[in-house]
This record gives sequence, structure tokens and C-alpha cells, in this order.
Amino acid sequence: MKAIVLLSGGLDSSTTLAVAKKQGYELYALTFRYGQRHQWEIEAAGRIAGHFQVTEHRIFDVDLSRFGGSALTADIEVPKDRDLEEIPRDIPITYVPARNTIFLSLALAWAEVLGARDIFIGVNALDYSGYPDCRPEFIEAFERTADLGTRAGVEGKKIKIHTPLIHLNKAQIIKKGLELGVDFSLTSTCYDPSFKGEACGKCDACLLRLKGFAEAGIRDPGKYRT
Amino acid sequence: MKAIVLLSGGLDSSTTLAVAKKQGYELYALTFRYGQRHQWEIEAAGRIAGHFQVTEHRIFDVDLSRFGGSALTADIEVPKDRDLEEIPRDIPITYVPARNTIFLSLALAWAEVLGARDIFIGVNALDYSGYPDCRPEFIEAFERTADLGTRAGVEGKKIKIHTPLIHLNKAQIIKKGLELGVDFSLTSTCYDPSFKGEACGKCDACLLRLKGFAEAGIRDPGKYRT
Repeated sequence: MKAIVLLSGGLDSSTTLAVAKKQGYELYALTFRYGQRHQWEIEAAGRIAGHFQVTEHRIFDVDLSRFGGSALTADIEVPKDRDLEEIPRDIPITYVPARNTIFLSLALAWAEVLGARDIFIGVNALDYSGYPDCRPEFIEAFERTADLGTRAGVEGKKIKIHTPLIHLNKAQIIKKGLELGVDFSLTSTCYDPSFKGEACGKCDACLLRLKGFAEAGIRDPGKYRT
Repeated sequence: MKAIVLLSGGLDSSTTLAVAKKQGYELYALTFRYGQRHQWEIEAAGRIAGHFQVTEHRIFDVDLSRFGGSALTADIEVPKDRDLEEIPRDIPITYVPARNTIFLSLALAWAEVLGARDIFIGVNALDYSGYPDCRPEFIEAFERTADLGTRAGVEGKKIKIHTPLIHLNKAQIIKKGLELGVDFSLTSTCYDPSFKGEACGKCDACLLRLKGFAEAGIRDPGKYRT
């Protein structure tokens, strides 16, 4: 059975890929060059795809920086050294408008063409829950949209959006990833656009990663600026 | 109030733009260069956007031909001279996988950044109802996805997907368009990739257009190959 796996090159999507592999799917990894300033993650996605020997890794261009509205795509400073307790309360400036809706829609197109009915996405509702498009109810609504808007759905072949990490915290994700053979030294998490192999250690994404490794009691193999 | 209007350059989206204008919205027209072989329609969209003096007309690149699976994007012959009675029975080969889901997702991103809550799309459930992503239930499911997956939705600002043509037949759309000042000579309907200002008159899209004008008792100002 073929599955599309959204692969950003970060810790969550790499673990999600490992879960899909463990479940026996034939892997089609999909990475978006969406105008993210932290483009380094695209190379990380390539390393992870190679590590897990996916059947195909496709990098798809969809330049969301043309719309802007996020610190990840527009010239807005990435917040640093925020209090982790504060992070989930609001939708952060690193939220990219409609990003997961767009990414899942494009995955859906590829799934239809491949004849795949399974799409994996590494969204997570616990840590960093300020992103609306990481919630279970969003995923359910998208599944319904997918069933109604595609040939597969009309033909009664339900599209399943798999979210194996949705109820795990970062420490649990890290442990699961390690169990399943993820080499976290290959992943890229940092949001800082000046990141080039050395993470800032201060943006929300770095802080959550560091906290996750600390809670898991595991050394983060990532390189950080000193 | 700002509205995003999906504008392909065809008859339906042009009439939809006219409806949005009539309703007093500030118009942001969005056209996709999605790898359609009948690229001529993008120029038509520019003419229509100019005719209706939209605030902004944006052409966005999202190359769905990379996924293929449709006669509109892949090297598959566009069907000609089909029986119009047969057309609605199956999903046609000109169906582009997940196209409207993708287009609405991208419109949603722009709407979020602009602070717009209204998106217009010229889908139609009567003529050519073989497209699953033109049905009212698909649109409703997408609206729910949009509310759950965006900052606007979380803040209680409902996203409305307007489908003013959904229950009209082609003749009714043409009459409405004329009432609202659409110059149909500016529009482009033909699916034939060799179309360059002269429609084939034989593909499904041409046949439905010709039938619509005939039923409306109005002369089609489009140019056809003789």
C-alpha cells in the first residue's frame, strides 16, 4: 500500500515517516519549497528520505511567501527566547496562513494520481498547540473535504489522514523516533533563516526541541551555536 | 469588504466576478498557472480583471502538471465531440485531482493575509456535474475545514465560500453575466491546448458553452475554428 508522507525535514515529520515505514507502507515523501526562509530543512528532508529509502521523494514548489503573513515566509523577525508556557496561548507569528490545508490538498492530488488512500502528517496538538491547523477536528474536517472533493471519495475509497503523533508530547515523539531508527542528527528544526547547520537554540522550535530531549533524558545530536 | 474571487478566465468565473462586484465587494482576483495546457485562459483572466477594474489580480504558480492525472495538465488527449448527455455520468478525464481543494486552500491563505472572509468560486453543480469538487457538500466541508484550520476561524470570523452559480445552468449563467456587464468575447473556455484565440468547438467545455448560448438564445461572441 502506498502512502504519502509530508516530510519537512524536522523531528516530527521524520518520526512520522518512520511510523509509516514500520506500518509497512510504500513511502512517497512530499516536501514543500514554500518560500520558508529556513530552507535548510529541505536538505534535511532529503537526508531523511534517503535514510529511510523511500520509493520517491518529491520536492514541490508552492511559494506561500507571495502571500506573506508569517515570520517563516515574510521579512518578520522570528521570536527568540520566549517563555515556553506562553507559547501555546496565542497563534504565533510563525503560523503560516492555511499552510496545512494547502499541504494536505497537494498531498491529496498526488495521492489521487498514485492511487494512494493514506496520507501521513506529523501534526501535534499538545506542544505548540497555538497552530489551529494541527488540531484533530481540523484533520477530521479535511478528511471529509477530501472524500467529497475527489474521484477516490466518489468511488467509495476513503482517504485517511494519519496523524500518529497528534497526542504525543515532544519527549514521547523523540523516544518513538529513536525506537524506529530515526537519526535525529539528520533533522533540521530551527526557524532562524540564518541557520546553516547550526541551530539558534532560541526560537520556539529550538526551545521545544531542547525541552523534548531534556525531558526524554536523551542527548540532542543537533548542532547548536555556542 | 474584501473578497477573493477565483478567476480562471472562463465564462463561469467571469460571471462570478461580476456577481461579487455587484454585491459591493472590493475585488482581489486570483488566477492559477497550474500547468494547464490551455494557458490562453490566463490571458483571458487578465482581460476580465482589467474589465472589472479589480483592486488586485494575482497570478499564482502551482504546477499541478507535476502530479499529472488529467487531460488538462498531462499529455492525454482532450476528448472531443462527446454526447452531452453522457458527460455528467462519469468523472471526466479533464478532472484535475484535488484542484478545487488546492485552489480554495491557496485562496484561503491570501484571504487570511488580507483579512478577507469571503471567497467566491464559480463552481456549478448542474452542467458537468461529474466533477466531485463542484458539489455543494464539498463546498460546505471545505468551509468547515477553513474555519478550523485558520487564525480567522479560531477568532470566530467565519470564512464564507460563495458559490453564486452553483444551482444555475449554463444558459442562466450567460444571462446573468450579460446583465452584470460581462463581455464574453474576453473569456476563454476551450480546453484544447492548441487553442490560441480560436476555440475548437468540440471539447466538453466548448460544447457546454455553445449549448448554453443556444439555450439562452444569445449569440456567442467567442471565435471558433471553422
